[in-house]
Amino acid sequence: MIIVLKPEASADVAQELLDRIAEKGLKPLHMPGAERVVLGALGDERVLAELALESHPMVESLKPILAPYKLVSREMHPHDTVVRLGRTAIGGRGFTVIAGPCAVETESQMRNTIAATKAAGADAIRAGAYKPRTSPYAFQGHGIEGLKILRATGDEFGLPVVTEVMETADVEVVAEYADALQIGARNMQNYALLRSVGRSGKPVVLKRGMAAKVEDLLLAAEYLLAEGNEQVVLCERGIRTFETATRNTLDLNAIPYIKQKTHLPVLVDPSHGTGIRDLVAPMALAAAACGADGILVEVHEDPAVAWSDGAQSLYPHQFAQLMANLAPICAAVGRQLAA
Amino acid sequence: MIIVLKPEASADVAQELLDRIAEKGLKPLHMPGAERVVLGALGDERVLAELALESHPMVESLKPILAPYKLVSREMHPHDTVVRLGRTAIGGRGFTVIAGPCAVETESQMRNTIAATKAAGADAIRAGAYKPRTSPYAFQGHGIEGLKILRATGDEFGLPVVTEVMETADVEVVAEYADALQIGARNMQNYALLRSVGRSGKPVVLKRGMAAKVEDLLLAAEYLLAEGNEQVVLCERGIRTFETATRNTLDLNAIPYIKQKTHLPVLVDPSHGTGIRDLVAPMALAAAACGADGILVEVHEDPAVAWSDGAQSLYPHQFAQLMANLAPICAAVGRQLAA
Amino acid sequence: MIIVLKPEASADVAQELLDRIAEKGLKPLHMPGAERVVLGALGDERVLAELALESHPMVESLKPILAPYKLVSREMHPHDTVVRLGRTAIGGRGFTVIAGPCAVETESQMRNTIAATKAAGADAIRAGAYKPRTSPYAFQGHGIEGLKILRATGDEFGLPVVTEVMETADVEVVAEYADALQIGARNMQNYALLRSVGRSGKPVVLKRGMAAKVEDLLLAAEYLLAEGNEQVVLCERGIRTFETATRNTLDLNAIPYIKQKTHLPVLVDPSHGTGIRDLVAPMALAAAACGADGILVEVHEDPAVAWSDGAQSLYPHQFAQLMANLAPICAAVGRQLAA
Amino acid sequence: MIIVLKPEASADVAQELLDRIAEKGLKPLHMPGAERVVLGALGDERVLAELALESHPMVESLKPILAPYKLVSREMHPHDTVVRLGRTAIGGRGFTVIAGPCAVETESQMRNTIAATKAAGADAIRAGAYKPRTSPYAFQGHGIEGLKILRATGDEFGLPVVTEVMETADVEVVAEYADALQIGARNMQNYALLRSVGRSGKPVVLKRGMAAKVEDLLLAAEYLLAEGNEQVVLCERGIRTFETATRNTLDLNAIPYIKQKTHLPVLVDPSHGTGIRDLVAPMALAAAACGADGILVEVHEDPAVAWSDGAQSLYPHQFAQLMANLAPICAAVGRQLAA
Repeated sequence: MIIVLKPEASADVAQELLDRIAEKGLKPLHMPGAERVVLGALGDERVLAELALESHPMVESLKPILAPYKLVSREMHPHDTVVRLGRTAIGGRGFTVIAGPCAVETESQMRNTIAATKAAGADAIRAGAYKPRTSPYAFQGHGIEGLKILRATGDEFGLPVVTEVMETADVEVVAEYADALQIGARNMQNYALLRSVGRSGKPVVLKRGMAAKVEDLLLAAEYLLAEGNEQVVLCERGIRTFETATRNTLDLNAIPYIKQKTHLPVLVDPSHGTGIRDLVAPMALAAAACGADGILVEVHEDPAVAWSDGAQSLYPHQFAQLMANLAPICAAVGRQLAA
Repeated sequence: MIIVLKPEASADVAQELLDRIAEKGLKPLHMPGAERVVLGALGDERVLAELALESHPMVESLKPILAPYKLVSREMHPHDTVVRLGRTAIGGRGFTVIAGPCAVETESQMRNTIAATKAAGADAIRAGAYKPRTSPYAFQGHGIEGLKILRATGDEFGLPVVTEVMETADVEVVAEYADALQIGARNMQNYALLRSVGRSGKPVVLKRGMAAKVEDLLLAAEYLLAEGNEQVVLCERGIRTFETATRNTLDLNAIPYIKQKTHLPVLVDPSHGTGIRDLVAPMALAAAACGADGILVEVHEDPAVAWSDGAQSLYPHQFAQLMANLAPICAAVGRQLAA
Repeated sequence: MIIVLKPEASADVAQELLDRIAEKGLKPLHMPGAERVVLGALGDERVLAELALESHPMVESLKPILAPYKLVSREMHPHDTVVRLGRTAIGGRGFTVIAGPCAVETESQMRNTIAATKAAGADAIRAGAYKPRTSPYAFQGHGIEGLKILRATGDEFGLPVVTEVMETADVEVVAEYADALQIGARNMQNYALLRSVGRSGKPVVLKRGMAAKVEDLLLAAEYLLAEGNEQVVLCERGIRTFETATRNTLDLNAIPYIKQKTHLPVLVDPSHGTGIRDLVAPMALAAAACGADGILVEVHEDPAVAWSDGAQSLYPHQFAQLMANLAPICAAVGRQLAA
Repeated sequence: MIIVLKPEASADVAQELLDRIAEKGLKPLHMPGAERVVLGALGDERVLAELALESHPMVESLKPILAPYKLVSREMHPHDTVVRLGRTAIGGRGFTVIAGPCAVETESQMRNTIAATKAAGADAIRAGAYKPRTSPYAFQGHGIEGLKILRATGDEFGLPVVTEVMETADVEVVAEYADALQIGARNMQNYALLRSVGRSGKPVVLKRGMAAKVEDLLLAAEYLLAEGNEQVVLCERGIRTFETATRNTLDLNAIPYIKQKTHLPVLVDPSHGTGIRDLVAPMALAAAACGADGILVEVHEDPAVAWSDGAQSLYPHQFAQLMANLAPICAAVGRQLAA
């Protein structure tokens, strides 16, 4: 940690802070300059959080030297983590495609949609039984009945299922029916939920919040790993910016950046990342090209009558075309789609 | 609702959509232009959500005519709602000052801090027993022990207490000890929590999320009112933008805008809104000048040793100075501080 | 144009506005609803700008039906524009790679760098003689001497050169030495410069501003086309968001969106779009995968000693590797790199 | 400057960089830690820009100790600068109100509008003769004819005039007619224009760009001061964020922050900062409360027929009411409106 003092800070202040650093077991450094006094603290600076140095009225600014996360860091764990999702693996040489409707609507909607995605080569199913909706007047999901339909569909087609859990009280029941638990963008910093899902031991898909920096996402994942759960998949799904042409701004820069910083696999959700059906396929290809480990994509048997997110859902024939187009892109970057 | 069709939409598509609008009980309108066909749906367009018109491949764009919220809308409820917080009222002629430390640390820290804020004229206490922290390694609050200290402090000084609740499982216990429940920025779209807090019947302070548009905030409040709870106070606490000089960008534009759109009172949190101690007082004055109903402000007996948020906490003497400076500003806009 | 009136608007106001619409030669529509009166104006609504309807105190909101740009619109001009840059074409089946250092530093730096980019297959040269720098104390470019070195390098290697022009007074001299004029992100809404460059008749590379919506970019391009210059290439180079891990947030969503809306070709600048050397290649591949017509990329013979932007400049061997990796991605999307 | 090396950096790299720092005349520091080697450079670190340390492949991150600007810094120049604008001063005890229409439309529009603003107590006139417009089809201003009307209006009412200059070629003529030159938000980083306006010696009103951090604004001002012109007034006018309820997000945090960092006065433009007539007055009051030195506000004799920006222009009676409401706020913060 580097600590820059204000110009008016006295020598006594510098000494006081150096003493506090030493008490924490770090090596203190004193660097008096012409315009500012700079202090340093070498060692595991995370323990300095307790000193709350930024609160001192004579501290101008701080610069941490190390990342604030540990367990998710590639420095601590250089090899890629592979997350098992039924017979599918996320994070290895394969490029994983998780497809399905926004919400579980009916048995036939699920069957027809997943029959199509499976035929086109999808590896797993996504669909929501609990839906976070901006308006209280919008469809909120079928709950347990939805989970049952989802499970039955997964079993019928032999595909693992990923579905969102929105509160700690539901973690147990969702974990009973699903192969992986999704934490949605709005709940990325719902710490009670993170801890509860971490303790469930189930594979987790953690979506980036709309206002979350990549560092915030990694710290949210750190909550999961701190509970002993290493089966964590990150998911970039677009951030909120000033651009209104698209629903969100898909931040693909985050993909190679995340791959540098962490050993966890990372997916891209081009459906929420764009909000516009015609942009989903190009951005799915871009995700594969820049190193994502897979995609999470919305497909509906008939998007024009979908109960939610229809505008960003692919038609089955569009999904089949996307799979065909993904194959050579994956090959070009040394990945492969499931057979 | 206005529906603009794509240039290639056929007359059959237009007719199909007009029929669906009519089936929902709205009055359909057909406006064929040279370059686009425009459809209209007059009436309570909220029922159109079920039609998911934006999903139709021949729909280019939609424009709602009415706001998506109802119960929070000033159109439905023109008079200002006044929220009772013990002997304090938020939303009337008074300007309410809720002050206290970020977190409950110790009995003496609470007593010393609140003795000072009360002496300076604060109306209520804020302090957290459950703390949402970006890092799992940061202090997470004392939980129930913190609630007990908070309650005892409130009773000792005769001031109502506001504190954050982070998950549905805690709503009951927090409601037992606190006079009002705060929903934090990170949980503004935690819908399970919103419903649970709504059902508690307790006054609520709902903070705006870091990526939430004002409309999203009002829809989150709609969840609370939809559960029968009208004792809702909104709180602007800064949004996340590209500016890094301050922790957040305090969006004071939102204050007069919110006062136009809703009957609910609105507070400003200049502590989180700036993140910098020296900016808190000027922004508190600005909040009063532009029509806020009060402030939520962090004060600590000794910010330099605060366990969290010390950099944005006022010293007691700074808070006393702020109260002195607030008085003439409040008077200038026809409000008054509590005696 | 759809015009929503405020609830308190009288029938007289509606009539007044309908009359003003009719006077402009548009077909007025009156749609009285239970909660709002809605008016419509069918026809070329761009003439309505003169009415400034948004200024009327009884107008609640407006919704344009048509895009505000014309000449750049694909609706008016369905076929792709191909921009000629010496022997290179931007916008056809080829994927164009324009590479070079941030700034012209010395003759040998240019020669060594371009020898390497040409050998690896680059189609054109980029380098700045006039540099917009945030700080007045940073290197501002060599000016005319830089243009001469740039021209000589282009001639030596038989490659066209693209370089930035920063003010109208320099348009003539830059046009004399360069094959295409670049308008930088900071000048995207420098309308005097747009008009001057438009009149020059030279091919233009127009970079998106850091706070520019895609619609703003298209309107800036409209200024160029309105001067009779159709040789316009757009360039996405990242927007400014809250994310600080990368210099900018590269908005690749914009690529397929722009291809839908306009006939102009579009490049991606992954160097400024990320600001980090190791992210440049993955994002260049992503750009190719999602449909960009080429890239503008910074390469330097020795980035560690570059006078500017070294942190985002590729080493020559990294550029050669990128070209090798681009080839199969381009092939996968039906494009080809120059031989 | 603090330089953090990558974990894989060798001792030779550290030595190489330390040598380069010493060559520049700064004191090098070597701080080897367990996980990272950290280097320091004490002294006037601005000379380090030439080393481009961020470009070195073994440098992980940099932290400057000092601000990148000098002449605008309060550290170098502790006392407030007062800018003279005719008989008006910006930056002293007074609170300056510069009011007028968006654009010069006609002689009578100017006369009627300014008669009203002067009667209500305005100190100066604002109005544009050259208008930067997003669309090439919108009214672009009357140019020199507009300047003449503006000058005549100023002379008639004895008020100084502020008007925008959009390109270097116009600096001379605008300086001939105006008392102060405004550089608009879109041109804040048009460095050729900054230098030209700096050399004119005229007082300048420099508006913050839509995507400009406060530091960027101060660096843009540094360009003006570097040309020897200290008569510079900054202006906060809203930044671009995800919020769409208002035209821009007025960043009032910036006001007390700017007052700390620089000796230059700062105005607020609540018209562009909100884009909504009814929000202008509350935000003007907030600006005064948080320490702004004045406001720049749009007023039109009849906003409903204004040629531009009518939706954010005050009616004359609203402006008179605003002036009446500003007086006690100014008094409360120790400022005063002109008599």
